[in-house]
Amino acid sequence: MAVYTEVSDEELEAFVAGYGIGQVVSCKGIAEGIENSNYLLQTEEESYILTLYEKRVAPKDLPFFLGLMDHLAARGIDCPVPIRDADGAALRELCGRPAAMVSFLKGMWPRRVTAEHCAALGQALAEMHLAGADFAMSRANDLSLAGWKTLFATCRDRADEVEPGLAAEIATEIDDLDAQWPTESATGVIHADLFPDNVFFLGDRLSGLIDFYFACTDILAYDIAVCLNAWCFESDGDFNITKAKRLLAAYGEARPLDPGELAALPILARGAALRFLLTRLHDRLFPPEGVMVRHKDPLEYLRRLRFHRGIAGPAAYGLA
Amino acid sequence: MAVYTEVSDEELEAFVAGYGIGQVVSCKGIAEGIENSNYLLQTEEESYILTLYEKRVAPKDLPFFLGLMDHLAARGIDCPVPIRDADGAALRELCGRPAAMVSFLKGMWPRRVTAEHCAALGQALAEMHLAGADFAMSRANDLSLAGWKTLFATCRDRADEVEPGLAAEIATEIDDLDAQWPTESATGVIHADLFPDNVFFLGDRLSGLIDFYFACTDILAYDIAVCLNAWCFESDGDFNITKAKRLLAAYGEARPLDPGELAALPILARGAALRFLLTRLHDRLFPPEGVMVRHKDPLEYLRRLRFHRGIAGPAAYGLA
Repeated sequence: MAVYTEVSDEELEAFVAGYGIGQVVSCKGIAEGIENSNYLLQTEEESYILTLYEKRVAPKDLPFFLGLMDHLAARGIDCPVPIRDADGAALRELCGRPAAMVSFLKGMWPRRVTAEHCAALGQALAEMHLAGADFAMSRANDLSLAGWKTLFATCRDRADEVEPGLAAEIATEIDDLDAQWPTESATGVIHADLFPDNVFFLGDRLSGLIDFYFACTDILAYDIAVCLNAWCFESDGDFNITKAKRLLAAYGEARPLDPGELAALPILARGAALRFLLTRLHDRLFPPEGVMVRHKDPLEYLRRLRFHRGIAGPAAYGLA
Repeated sequence: MAVYTEVSDEELEAFVAGYGIGQVVSCKGIAEGIENSNYLLQTEEESYILTLYEKRVAPKDLPFFLGLMDHLAARGIDCPVPIRDADGAALRELCGRPAAMVSFLKGMWPRRVTAEHCAALGQALAEMHLAGADFAMSRANDLSLAGWKTLFATCRDRADEVEPGLAAEIATEIDDLDAQWPTESATGVIHADLFPDNVFFLGDRLSGLIDFYFACTDILAYDIAVCLNAWCFESDGDFNITKAKRLLAAYGEARPLDPGELAALPILARGAALRFLLTRLHDRLFPPEGVMVRHKDPLEYLRRLRFHRGIAGPAAYGLA
């Protein structure tokens, strides 16, 4: 939640002139997206999102992210579409940073997640996976096993400041995941960060997916595992099996999961919980400078990780 | 810069239904306004600003603020207009907080202030003072002399942590201001916080004033003194006499300053500099909890205060 870069009037005017979208009548920093500076920019006719990519996003990855949004939108997925300037460029520069403008997506993210939201999410996720199947570019997931090991190496010595015994528990978990991580599961383009604030609804209808800046090529079912973590736990920490069941059922209707994918869900869910535990732990121990973020509790994901470790099998997620 | 309160879907829907403005298609927390939670809310037809008043704004003052915006707008001042619900109420409640919706004002605040901006500001400020002359309500300025003494009392013991000798310098300054504060100067409704981020421009044209949540009844020329501090210093700390001259000239054309007001400007400017020095010092020493704000440097206003103390008279502001 942050705006890092203040765009001067002259720079904004020059930047926007490249698009031929008319006069800007408003441009407000919005308190969403913790990795980049986001502005809601309005002309007399239209709204757009202007994003300045800050240092946590690698410039070399931007063509993948923007290309993916183009690709998905062309296949009917509701997501922001990069706007091209008069020269056809979607990726430009503003205030010395890579910058892009995308179409504005109507809708609001659900503050209180219901089982209906989870069903709509499952369907949209499966449709996104299917639509991404013929996307030509690829990008490794730098927040999978190898990335977790690197993150853990930087946090290990201080992890017990947050919870005694945490370093040992994570070390064991990484060993487990290393030994059991699926190798045969179907891969493709995944969103990798599909939290409720990245999914918009208009009334009961899912109106679109946003924030593709962690998207990568990885195990498709890992995306489901992220959603199980992000959507199916209550604020008191309890797992809500009804939500998980609706999510998985709706996903399966659009893209049936094979037995291997189903069997892999608990280990993938452990990995997904570890991913958010580690990034939150890192941000807690080494707060990024000049960044205004609400502190997110790493231990919330330790509890979710323990839940996934404790279940007997995927039936705990409500699978028939 | 903050959104404090997350509004749930159901609460927002129920709240907005009271206005009969149709379906909300977007509601985004905006990174502006450090005292309240602000959302840019869009329907198919219109944009609005939804504000939840957080604890730094006293509920008893809200009728004054909302009434003032109504009053000024009715007299042709470009400012947000409170929207009334079906029962005629502008002040309502949302998530247990006082809340109001106001009209959306087109424009952007100038990131790089020019002398032309200062001229437009001077005129708009004078017009606001004239339009406020027959506003029936009044509100004491709780951030004038008495308020500064209270603030200083809470900061005094720790002020030298920020700059050695600061406590003594502020103590002397308060004594000076106490002895020399104008008592005969014209009073009326003032904005009291008219920084560049509260003044919108569309191209070269000033399109409106926002954020009346420090407005009060006080010396009119004190409002000018705030603007001299907030608009007429460069980022290197230098005073820009051209900007001050344009601001004062434009103000004077719309509402001529009498000799007493002119003579009082340096002392009022010292007071205004001290006001921002003290509030920034307080926020530095006692950071408000759960609030995401960029740290503002109190010493920036110490340097401005010293500038105003060092001048021979109001001619230093470019007055003929």
